[in-house]
Amino acid sequence: MAEAVTIAVDVMGGDRGPAVILGGAEAALSRRAGIRYALFGDAAVIESLLRERPRLAAVSTVHHCEVAVAMTDKPSQALRHGRWRSSMWRAIEAVKKGEADFTISAGNTGALMAMARFCLRTLADIERPAIAAQWPTLRGMSIVLDVGASIGADARQLIDFAVMGGAMARALFNIPRPTVGLLNIGVEEVKGLEEVRTAGRILKETPMHNLVYGGFVEGDDLGRGTVDVVVTEGFSGNIALKTAEGTARQISAYLREEMSRTLFARLGYLLAKDAFDSLREKLDPRKANGGVFLGLNGIVVKSHGDADEFGFASAVENGFDMVQNGLQQKISNDLAEYHGAGFHQEIREGATGTGGL
Amino acid sequence: MAEAVTIAVDVMGGDRGPAVILGGAEAALSRRAGIRYALFGDAAVIESLLRERPRLAAVSTVHHCEVAVAMTDKPSQALRHGRWRSSMWRAIEAVKKGEADFTISAGNTGALMAMARFCLRTLADIERPAIAAQWPTLRGMSIVLDVGASIGADARQLIDFAVMGGAMARALFNIPRPTVGLLNIGVEEVKGLEEVRTAGRILKETPMHNLVYGGFVEGDDLGRGTVDVVVTEGFSGNIALKTAEGTARQISAYLREEMSRTLFARLGYLLAKDAFDSLREKLDPRKANGGVFLGLNGIVVKSHGDADEFGFASAVENGFDMVQNGLQQKISNDLAEYHGAGFHQEIREGATGTGGL
Repeated sequence: MAEAVTIAVDVMGGDRGPAVILGGAEAALSRRAGIRYALFGDAAVIESLLRERPRLAAVSTVHHCEVAVAMTDKPSQALRHGRWRSSMWRAIEAVKKGEADFTISAGNTGALMAMARFCLRTLADIERPAIAAQWPTLRGMSIVLDVGASIGADARQLIDFAVMGGAMARALFNIPRPTVGLLNIGVEEVKGLEEVRTAGRILKETPMHNLVYGGFVEGDDLGRGTVDVVVTEGFSGNIALKTAEGTARQISAYLREEMSRTLFARLGYLLAKDAFDSLREKLDPRKANGGVFLGLNGIVVKSHGDADEFGFASAVENGFDMVQNGLQQKISNDLAEYHGAGFHQEIREGATGTGGL
Repeated sequence: MAEAVTIAVDVMGGDRGPAVILGGAEAALSRRAGIRYALFGDAAVIESLLRERPRLAAVSTVHHCEVAVAMTDKPSQALRHGRWRSSMWRAIEAVKKGEADFTISAGNTGALMAMARFCLRTLADIERPAIAAQWPTLRGMSIVLDVGASIGADARQLIDFAVMGGAMARALFNIPRPTVGLLNIGVEEVKGLEEVRTAGRILKETPMHNLVYGGFVEGDDLGRGTVDVVVTEGFSGNIALKTAEGTARQISAYLREEMSRTLFARLGYLLAKDAFDSLREKLDPRKANGGVFLGLNGIVVKSHGDADEFGFASAVENGFDMVQNGLQQKISNDLAEYHGAGFHQEIREGATGTGGL
C-alpha cells in the first residue's frame, strides 16, 4: 500500500494559527511516506510560510479561500458565512469531489460537523454521524464514540456506532475482530437506559463477522481497556472524555507539586527522570489527537483546537493510517452486512421505546 | 455542638464482612467525640466481634436481625425478602423512628436506595432523591450529584439537586455560599440538553441567599474544582465518577511500572518516597468514601462495598460531620426558600420540554 494519500487541510482552523498547522503538516512528512497536501486558506499567508518550508511546499497545492471560520462562530453562522468559500468548507468539498482522501481541521468542532454533514451527507442508512476518539488504556489504545457529535442516541444509532467503531479499530489497530462494549452504569443486563439495554440485547443476539460484543462496560473500564471500542451517546461520551483529561491533568499537577517540595524529592525526581519522561509520554494527549467523524461519505479528522505541531502531526498520521487501511470501505462493508442482518428491522418492529436519550 | 450523634449501622452490608465494618466503626471513635452506635445484624456474630472491641461495645447497642440483604440482590428482591426485618431495613427504620441520626451501610446500593425511599419517603416537594459524592479537586473538595440514584432528570429535579448539593457543601465544607455549576458539554448557554439549559436559565435568573450559580461546567472542571457543587443527572454523573476513578488507577499503574523499571528510577523512588506517599494519600479514594442520599426524610450514607476499615471510618466521619452541622435542616430550609421563590411554578407553567432526560 504505497499509494499516495492526499490530505485536504483547513489551514485557517485552530487556536494557534497557520504556522503551527503547516509545521505539523511538515512534521508528518518525516513519519509517513506518500503524503500530498491540498492546503486551503489565505494564499498570501500560506505561500509566505511555505517559502520557509520547501519540503512541505514540494508536496502541496495551495487553494486560496477568502473566508475563515472563526473558533467562536456558531454552526449556523459558519454555514451562512462560510459555505462554498471558507477554507473549512473547501477542504471538506475536496473530499467530496474526490480530490483528497480525507479532510483535517483544527477549527471549530460544531462548524466542522455542520459543514461536513451538509457537504458530504451521511452514509445511506446512517441517521447521525459520530465523533470517535482514541483513548489510551492500560492495554494500549481503545476507541470511544460518540464523544459529542450530538446528544442522545437510540438503539439503532448505538448499534451503528458499534459497527463504525469496530471498523475504525480494524483500520487503526489492525485487530481482525475488535471487542465492542456499551457504556452503562452497571454491567447487569437489567440496568441502565432503555436504549442501551435494547442495543445490548440485539448485539448479543446477532452474530457478526468483524466484531465481538463484549457487553456493558462502566466508566472505569475505559482506562482499563476492557474492550477495544466503547459505544455511548454524545453527552455522556463527551463528559467521560473531558473528565478523564481533567483527572490526568489533576494528578500531573499533584505529582509536579510533590516532586518539587523537598530536596529529597527533587533529587529523586532527577534520578528517576527517564521514568518521569516516559510517564509524561504515556499521558501525552497529543499522541491520541484527532477525533474522527464517522458515518459520512468521506473521512473528516478534527484536531484539537490548541494542538501544537506535534499534536497536529499526530492527527494527520492517524488519518493517513486509517485511509491507507481502507477505513471508509470497511465502514460501508460492515454497515451493509449488519444492516442486511436485519437487526435494524427488528428495532423498528420491536418495542424499543422512544429513541433519543 | 458536643451533642452525641447516634449512627445506625447495617453491619451485614459490604464485601468484606462484619469484622471490617465494626473495625471501621471503632476507628471513627478516635477521631470524633460523641458517637453512639446502633448495630443491626446477626447478634451472635456482632457480639462475638464486640468482645474483642470493648471500646466499641461501650458505645453500642446490638439489634438482632435475621435477614441480610445480599450484594447481588436486585432492589425488588431485597424489598421482598428484607423489608421490616433485614439489617439494612432496620438501620434505616431507626432514623425514621428518631432512634438514630443517620444510617450507614456498605451494602448493595440499589437495595439501599429502594429501602430508603420506601421507609423514609422523599421530602415534600422532592420527586427524586440523589446520591451525592465528594470529589477531590485541585482546590480541595467538591460535591457531585447525582452519581447514580436514577437515570435522567428534568430541570426541576436538577434545580433541587443544586439546592441540596449546596446545603451539603455548607454542612460539610463550611462554605456560606457555595458555587454551583451544571455539568454540560459546553459552557455556552445554547449548548447541551434542553433540561440543563432550562435549569441554567432559571438558576441564573433567581437570586439565592445560600448559593451562587456558576453556570455550565464541563468534565474537566470536575478535577479543577471550578465550582463547589456540580449538578448532573445520574447516568452521566455515574459515568464521570467511574471514569475519574479509572483514570486515577490507570495513572497510578503507569507510575508504579515506570518507577520500578530501572535502577535509577527505583533509587529515585526511594529518595522521593515521602513525596510518593503524599501523592498516594491525595489520590486515596477512601478519604472521600461515602455517597450520601439526599432528598429523603433522613440521612443515609452509602459506603463503598469494598471499603476497608479506614474507608468505612471515613464514611462514618463524613456522615457525623454533616449531621452535626445540621445538613437535613439546611436542606429543608433551602428547599423551602427556593420552592417559595416560585421557580418550580415557572417550570410547570413554562415551555420546558418533556421532563426526564
